Amino acid sequence: MTRIGVIGGGQLARMMQPAAIALGVELRVLAESENSSAHQAVSMVGDYNEFSVLENFSKTVDVITFDHEHVPVSHLAKLEETGVLVRPGAGALIHAQNKLVMRQAMEKLSLPQPIWQEVRSERDLQNFLNDHAQAVVKTPIGGYDGKGVRVVTKTSEVADWLENLEQFGGSLLAEQKIDFQRELSQLSARNANGEFSAWPLVQTNQHKGVCSEVIAPAPGTSDLALASKIAQTVAEGLNVTGVMAVELFEDSAGRLLINELAMRPHNSGHFSIEGSVTSQFEQHLRAVANLPLGATDMKSDMAVMVNLLGVDDKNTFVEHYPAVMKKFPRVKFHSYEKSARAGRKMGHLTTLGSNAKEILDMTLAARDALYRGGV
Amino acid sequence: MTRIGVIGGGQLARMMQPAAIALGVELRVLAESENSSAHQAVSMVGDYNEFSVLENFSKTVDVITFDHEHVPVSHLAKLEETGVLVRPGAGALIHAQNKLVMRQAMEKLSLPQPIWQEVRSERDLQNFLNDHAQAVVKTPIGGYDGKGVRVVTKTSEVADWLENLEQFGGSLLAEQKIDFQRELSQLSARNANGEFSAWPLVQTNQHKGVCSEVIAPAPGTSDLALASKIAQTVAEGLNVTGVMAVELFEDSAGRLLINELAMRPHNSGHFSIEGSVTSQFEQHLRAVANLPLGATDMKSDMAVMVNLLGVDDKNTFVEHYPAVMKKFPRVKFHSYEKSARAGRKMGHLTTLGSNAKEILDMTLAARDALYRGGV
Repeated sequence: MTRIGVIGGGQLARMMQPAAIALGVELRVLAESENSSAHQAVSMVGDYNEFSVLENFSKTVDVITFDHEHVPVSHLAKLEETGVLVRPGAGALIHAQNKLVMRQAMEKLSLPQPIWQEVRSERDLQNFLNDHAQAVVKTPIGGYDGKGVRVVTKTSEVADWLENLEQFGGSLLAEQKIDFQRELSQLSARNANGEFSAWPLVQTNQHKGVCSEVIAPAPGTSDLALASKIAQTVAEGLNVTGVMAVELFEDSAGRLLINELAMRPHNSGHFSIEGSVTSQFEQHLRAVANLPLGATDMKSDMAVMVNLLGVDDKNTFVEHYPAVMKKFPRVKFHSYEKSARAGRKMGHLTTLGSNAKEILDMTLAARDALYRGGV
Repeated sequence: MTRIGVIGGGQLARMMQPAAIALGVELRVLAESENSSAHQAVSMVGDYNEFSVLENFSKTVDVITFDHEHVPVSHLAKLEETGVLVRPGAGALIHAQNKLVMRQAMEKLSLPQPIWQEVRSERDLQNFLNDHAQAVVKTPIGGYDGKGVRVVTKTSEVADWLENLEQFGGSLLAEQKIDFQRELSQLSARNANGEFSAWPLVQTNQHKGVCSEVIAPAPGTSDLALASKIAQTVAEGLNVTGVMAVELFEDSAGRLLINELAMRPHNSGHFSIEGSVTSQFEQHLRAVANLPLGATDMKSDMAVMVNLLGVDDKNTFVEHYPAVMKKFPRVKFHSYEKSARAGRKMGHLTTLGSNAKEILDMTLAARDALYRGGV
């Protein structure tokens, strides 16, 4: 059976393992340490920035995919040249790594997005700020969970970045600040044959730039098909293989605008483990192994997912399971077995039901009890 | 976090691993070989019949549980004496290992079961046959999936067993042959604190003594609470910890009679992986780690589970995934990664829906396609 090699030993690789066990495909993980979150599946330890490490790992698997988007695309392109199957490939993955390349590609595909501009100098940014009261300035590469993003009204607020442009590839990205009603995420998958499948559009509630809760499907959405159509245009236009999340703004006029792309299973899709006929992790394995995609409809009317972020360097929540499980028998617990650190993604909770408010309140109460250590 | 040690590396241990990954408990498996079905979690290879192997394994975990019921109870009792947590304990497990001990215990608990008799000689069996046209003769230990069971009208049909009684502990078990309408299974769990929880009663369709399909909940059952009550009486009466299946006959008058007991996750509960808020594998881990039990209600109106039995020594079904997955996007595939052998349990399929006949027909068609190698 197909041996699927995952670069990165984080929680996404960890959560691929149950799907691999069910399907009977073999998961092998290249991790940075033996004690990674995906330790059950780690087959090699090494630095993904070294080409020789990637090359050695690729010889032990049939296809390579990712837990994260930090692998140098030049290395991946080189692997592909030698015949290694890399899914998504370097040509697609660059759009998830580099926000500037992504904006250019979305423009070429005529997809809706905020007004944006490449910033090669302070003057470029000043020009942008002359037209827009505020600018969202982003480093094209390396940002995630709010890192590498600043909302500014003056160029001096990113003076440190402007002085070191070469470390970001020579330019920054400035975007119009969208006065959004809410943020949404469209999860989809495309296999190597080009088969495409989308999950229902979901609402993501962010807190300090980090995903806090997900409500699936997104309540009160009139045109669910539009977001799926956007995702399909992206997936086909960029030749994506695997699961992809298109993060969207819903602006005050109700328009959908593309915020970011992720080309791997995504935090906004964790609800699908319990909530969907096919989870994002199973679908990702199917897609990269080029198996037909599974059905993506909900198993219940609604599902909510709530992230567990580290509160300090001690509380791993697991020790609070007994009291919280007793009070919340319907809530599903997911621990990533990561060492505790304030703000770190440590796990998540998922609850299914028919009333979004009811299950969201229940799951937030369970999180609160895990944070406080009591019910 | 709790390290749970599973004795036996079969598909039940394999299917505990996804639940362990979600909960963040550590699963360690003592298997007979590195290549066992549960190879992802194997931490020790050895013979469970050797006490020293069990003793060494017990030192690497916090609690011991089982993939199968073949571990000598005398060894387990000895481990318990030294303070090792064994769940279910030797005092409970004996009832799943020895059908004669089980019948005696059910009688003591005044639970409904077929008329039975201990057979210490040919004359005992002849006496039983004088009262009953047919007898189901069973070896008290070692039988499973129809092995160690014969339906007889004459004592000569078990002459070989009667001549070797000492190898079965000195006696056989004779039971009245029940003219049953159907077979049912009541799955439940009890944790170390005594908390009890049952899943809905399910119907099991047997073929040549092996479970072929499961329909959950059992259609057309008027008194679902009775089976759950029987299971609770057994679990509490025998002090069972962990998941237990009570296999039942529904006789022509609609009465429920206890057929057999299994004290571990059970084939009749595989539907719960997708179909229940808490799967039998998660619940078993919660029970043996003495965590509160999760909710057991169905995620859909109905679920069906269909076993994949080996058709020959080549077809592992996995190579037929592409064609079958394409035609059946709603069917969930489970491969046990076992080498192919005719009649061997190789995997299973599960489908959720609202119409039992529709999803059963769909899942049987998917199985047929996997067996034949085409759609």
